[in-house]
Amino acid sequence: MTDAVRDTAEPRISLDEVTPEFIDDVLQHLEGGQVDSIRAAVAVLSPTGVAWLLEQVSSDVRGQLVGILKDLLDPKTLVELDEEVREEVLEHLHPRDIAAAAQELDTDDAAEIIEDLSEVERREVLSELPAAERAAIEQTLSYPEDSAGRLMQRRLVAVPDTWTVGQVIDYCRDAIDLPDDVYDLFVIDSERRLRGSVALGRLIRTKRPVPVIDIMDPEIPSIPVTADQEEVAHIFRDQDLVSCPVVDDERRLLGVIMIDDVVDVIDEEAEDDLAHMGGVAGVDIHEAPVETVRSRSRWLLVNLGTAFLSSAVIGLFEAELQTVVALAVLMPIVASIGGNAGTQTVTVTVRALAMGELTMANALRFVGKEVIVGGFNGLLFATLVGMVTWLWFREIGIALIIGAAMAINLMAAALAGSVIPLTLERLRIDPAVSSPVFLTTVTDVTGFLSFLGLAAVLLL
Amino acid sequence: MTDAVRDTAEPRISLDEVTPEFIDDVLQHLEGGQVDSIRAAVAVLSPTGVAWLLEQVSSDVRGQLVGILKDLLDPKTLVELDEEVREEVLEHLHPRDIAAAAQELDTDDAAEIIEDLSEVERREVLSELPAAERAAIEQTLSYPEDSAGRLMQRRLVAVPDTWTVGQVIDYCRDAIDLPDDVYDLFVIDSERRLRGSVALGRLIRTKRPVPVIDIMDPEIPSIPVTADQEEVAHIFRDQDLVSCPVVDDERRLLGVIMIDDVVDVIDEEAEDDLAHMGGVAGVDIHEAPVETVRSRSRWLLVNLGTAFLSSAVIGLFEAELQTVVALAVLMPIVASIGGNAGTQTVTVTVRALAMGELTMANALRFVGKEVIVGGFNGLLFATLVGMVTWLWFREIGIALIIGAAMAINLMAAALAGSVIPLTLERLRIDPAVSSPVFLTTVTDVTGFLSFLGLAAVLLL
Repeated sequence: MTDAVRDTAEPRISLDEVTPEFIDDVLQHLEGGQVDSIRAAVAVLSPTGVAWLLEQVSSDVRGQLVGILKDLLDPKTLVELDEEVREEVLEHLHPRDIAAAAQELDTDDAAEIIEDLSEVERREVLSELPAAERAAIEQTLSYPEDSAGRLMQRRLVAVPDTWTVGQVIDYCRDAIDLPDDVYDLFVIDSERRLRGSVALGRLIRTKRPVPVIDIMDPEIPSIPVTADQEEVAHIFRDQDLVSCPVVDDERRLLGVIMIDDVVDVIDEEAEDDLAHMGGVAGVDIHEAPVETVRSRSRWLLVNLGTAFLSSAVIGLFEAELQTVVALAVLMPIVASIGGNAGTQTVTVTVRALAMGELTMANALRFVGKEVIVGGFNGLLFATLVGMVTWLWFREIGIALIIGAAMAINLMAAALAGSVIPLTLERLRIDPAVSSPVFLTTVTDVTGFLSFLGLAAVLLL
Repeated sequence: MTDAVRDTAEPRISLDEVTPEFIDDVLQHLEGGQVDSIRAAVAVLSPTGVAWLLEQVSSDVRGQLVGILKDLLDPKTLVELDEEVREEVLEHLHPRDIAAAAQELDTDDAAEIIEDLSEVERREVLSELPAAERAAIEQTLSYPEDSAGRLMQRRLVAVPDTWTVGQVIDYCRDAIDLPDDVYDLFVIDSERRLRGSVALGRLIRTKRPVPVIDIMDPEIPSIPVTADQEEVAHIFRDQDLVSCPVVDDERRLLGVIMIDDVVDVIDEEAEDDLAHMGGVAGVDIHEAPVETVRSRSRWLLVNLGTAFLSSAVIGLFEAELQTVVALAVLMPIVASIGGNAGTQTVTVTVRALAMGELTMANALRFVGKEVIVGGFNGLLFATLVGMVTWLWFREIGIALIIGAAMAINLMAAALAGSVIPLTLERLRIDPAVSSPVFLTTVTDVTGFLSFLGLAAVLLL
């Protein structure tokens, strides 16, 4: 399989239950008013399958489906839904139903759903919940968005550091509501401070009389409850973790973050970088058009400013453009290739910064390499563009000038493409958001100025 | 915390052992020839920390450090290293040392390292390995790159479907070399076909005489050994899995994929999308400059073709440009904003396709929305750019023409930005790689042609 060819026709194994044909069937049944057939077809789907179905249909159909399927909706379906779609679905549900769903979910998932509600609805749903659960969800919502406190779940197994393996196993046996997806137990002292963890695989292989502190791993990483989710993802990635305890500033155990929640974070962060580099605030295909117009036009407006700036630069050379019209024909080339080369450098820089590969320790060497690459490409493309220009216009002067301008602009693109994101990162501004527009300004202005400026000085 | 401001100054908790100051210290000790101080400082680092250190220093220093630290290198450090850096480090190691490291690692990690070696070295290393391990690694390397077979590890716990819980627990106790990071046991029939899985948490809570098939989950997902890694990531994501068994086409259990390997895949895929959209083959900051020049210039060359095509379009209007020089000054604006708006649409489309959110079932509705957004933005920017142009040049004709061209180009950008990636996906060509260049061609040609063309017809 080559780089450019992916086998995209292969069915998505996990979601082959909801094929386009399946969706067509549902739509036909809906038109025919065959409610029971729809309920029967959807009843056998996984929660992810149902979420998938609701995301794929139009807003109208979605409303109708939720009305029909209300009592069949698995709480997990709500968690799986895209945020915009979820808000829509929740509007069709009664606060009592939402509260019932929240009770079946982990605290972090329940909080995520309740967070999407309006203030009034949120209060209604919370009042339907038992006191303990309400308190847990309110506590979760009190942590800053995108913090470890929001990601963690409170359901975990913590055992005192005075117990033996036998006591721990008996405790697990008796606790009926223990989830199956527990992988590590945590050992705490009398003040609930984290002392270590025991992998279940280890526990099962140890004799009953052994004290649990003898088999615990005391050097497990822990995450402060206020840590940003990006930080959390870095820790999981660097240490290949499956779960990680969350502690307060006195190292008291508060909850545990599971890797499946971190996968969502990683997806989100990757999406953010890509979105910002592409000049969109986010990639939500379910957003209403009017919202999309508003968020996208803001970015285009900034670019319009840049574009007029470039025009102003060109305007300085009206006389030259009128005398040698070939300049007008050729001038976009220098700016365009400069912009492309600069985007290459910005992309590499932004990603390396996001992954933590690029730091102040190796920044200078990195910029140096980019400038060398820019220099080589500058020479290469100066020659190429000069040759083509000569063949086209048979004017050696213009050919030499466009070559020189190209070399200058590719060096400028490499320098700007690496230094701009590094500077923004230093200033604590997300480099993915602002780098592209600064870069284009540099490469456009340098491109037009060097080409037309050299022409003005040397040609006329 | 706003969208654009990240708290990047916060230390990376997991890697605060390798600070820029730590690296400076190491470099100073290296200059002073204080080998023992370096060994002592590095000995206390985690494998990830050592990998981090080796990645942050220059190639020369890296070679020296590997020479000094050879016997201290944890095999896990080799796994953690960036591929380019790893190749360098391996060159400094003896095949016997590499074989020793491979023996300590999971099959998938060992295969990944051995794969990087030259043919000769690979044979040498394999010959140093015990027969069973050599066979396992060779088998892993026989699966296609980026397939489930490459990702899976063979070390797992599979128990016969005739056993009781007590037998399983006794087996786990007796098997001394069982890893701690086992979370699920797999139940197989006499032909090694997968029948189900048992979470350790479940096992521990069940009485000894219960048959293991009574508590197994028979409906676990499994992944075909030939599945592409992107497919694997989708399955883990959709079903929130921590591990998943890998089977051959007769459902015989071959291995298990753990989520930490999938996190690497998710990172890789996200990086690929971002890199391709930015016109780079990959984001490897450790690549040699000459390699980088080669890979990047290829993309720029394609763009040079597009740029000359745009110039040819402009060349059709030489007479008009000479008569009304304001056209030359303003023409880049239409093309530039069109390119930016189209990039927004391409970004959203490519990501939605990659995440599986955009399918043939909702494609038409998606394109429709993008065109509506393009239309609204077209009206908005037509008005804006028309007004500014009128204020600048006081020529109502040019103002009206640039407005009309802007509206046309933003509609074209929305249509092309959504239809191009969808078409490429249909043709099984990675949309992230090729969409940007097709898009720019459309927006440049449409931009120049509509603006200059309208001017030629209406103005002169």
